[in-house]
Amino acid sequence: MPILKSKPLFPMSHFFFHPVLREGKVVILSPEEGFHLEVERIIPQSPIMLCDGRGGLFKALYLGKRDQKHLVEVRERIEKVPPPYRVEIWQGILHAPARMDWLVEKATEIGVSEIGFFPSERSVVFQISAHRVERWKKIVINACKQSGRVFFPEIRIFPTWEDFLSVLFCFKGSVFWTDPTEKVALSNFLSDERERAFALLVGPEGGFTEKERETFFTFSHIHRVKLLSGILRSETASLVGASLLMGFLDGRYANSH
Amino acid sequence: MPILKSKPLFPMSHFFFHPVLREGKVVILSPEEGFHLEVERIIPQSPIMLCDGRGGLFKALYLGKRDQKHLVEVRERIEKVPPPYRVEIWQGILHAPARMDWLVEKATEIGVSEIGFFPSERSVVFQISAHRVERWKKIVINACKQSGRVFFPEIRIFPTWEDFLSVLFCFKGSVFWTDPTEKVALSNFLSDERERAFALLVGPEGGFTEKERETFFTFSHIHRVKLLSGILRSETASLVGASLLMGFLDGRYANSH
Repeated sequence: MPILKSKPLFPMSHFFFHPVLREGKVVILSPEEGFHLEVERIIPQSPIMLCDGRGGLFKALYLGKRDQKHLVEVRERIEKVPPPYRVEIWQGILHAPARMDWLVEKATEIGVSEIGFFPSERSVVFQISAHRVERWKKIVINACKQSGRVFFPEIRIFPTWEDFLSVLFCFKGSVFWTDPTEKVALSNFLSDERERAFALLVGPEGGFTEKERETFFTFSHIHRVKLLSGILRSETASLVGASLLMGFLDGRYANSH
Repeated sequence: MPILKSKPLFPMSHFFFHPVLREGKVVILSPEEGFHLEVERIIPQSPIMLCDGRGGLFKALYLGKRDQKHLVEVRERIEKVPPPYRVEIWQGILHAPARMDWLVEKATEIGVSEIGFFPSERSVVFQISAHRVERWKKIVINACKQSGRVFFPEIRIFPTWEDFLSVLFCFKGSVFWTDPTEKVALSNFLSDERERAFALLVGPEGGFTEKERETFFTFSHIHRVKLLSGILRSETASLVGASLLMGFLDGRYANSH
């Protein structure tokens, strides 16, 4: 029996994920997506939307359930333009997994392009389990359905600090390292900013060590900034910083059209 | 026995709350604050900081424990200037209490002046229990210690929609009603904004009803805005909106000095 839920606010609740989509094909929904379809009480021959997480958004028709499988016919593709900018969050691995779950959900909702976790000296935990990554992928799908996003953020796990540094070194764009002891605010940088790719660099609960900080000072594309007055928790800093960047970029590109 | 915790990053972890403070007096910490003092392994005759939540910040001396009570001598007052602006969040009561807990914690960290909850037509729950409000007061204390804030936000519970409307009506400042169907972004308003008091108005999970929306349209100081592209969950909208306002205001007052 389908579970009764309160009436959905947006038709986006009729929006389902399948990783490989092509016009005219019939696809089988994953068990999770099939379950959501039943929860939403969608009946056979209903129109739904399908999304592949990489910008592919399709009108589709729910055909019905056969052998416990939910069959959907992929119909017309709807053109979706990727956002003209990228915001990535790079967060030191946190001790509390629930706080990372939370960050994945919220950062996905606001529309970041990547959420990366790296081990640093003050990380109490240095590895992310495969189980946790699977959980995050589900959080991403649900948050994207919730917020109507068809470009899913990438979840990136940096196995070592050195791997992280090499990616940081090669990043084409501006990196903002959030540091509550800094006087210059992120907003002071943004007004003159012309880049289209931004990364936000946030330490784990204990912050960065002196050695790590010295490494960052040697990179010319890393700007040390404060976000707001006061000291923010690590995952709050990530979300607030990304919100400020997204707000700035949304405004810039809205005005340029 | 005190519990061993990882080394605190900021000395603000030696920062305790007591509601009534005066120079030269000896006060008894609450059991919760006494417990935190033990967790932080603070020994008698150690200097600590005391805060009353209304801007009073004092140097103090931990005298020791007598009859299970932690005694502290209040010493010199440190002058703290209140922030030159106010940001209030008014949030429709959410169905999931954990999401409200989360909002109270994060909004406190970023430094809002008030967090209010009001019942609206699509709120699944219409009342906040006294137990929940007590829990929020503790969350506020912990978040303020964490972020070094000495002006605690007020938690306001509006018993009815009409109570809420009367406060909304009398509010001296700009109110931003967040609505994902609106085209004008919050940032478009801010550049010309001269107010010092702002309130952010966010609906419950199902949004506002047509009738509620019509009421808002009759108030001239309510501006309907979108925050970012995409649809945000209710509590995410509150935090993102407040972050954008705080970021703007921090920047404005940093530049004016």
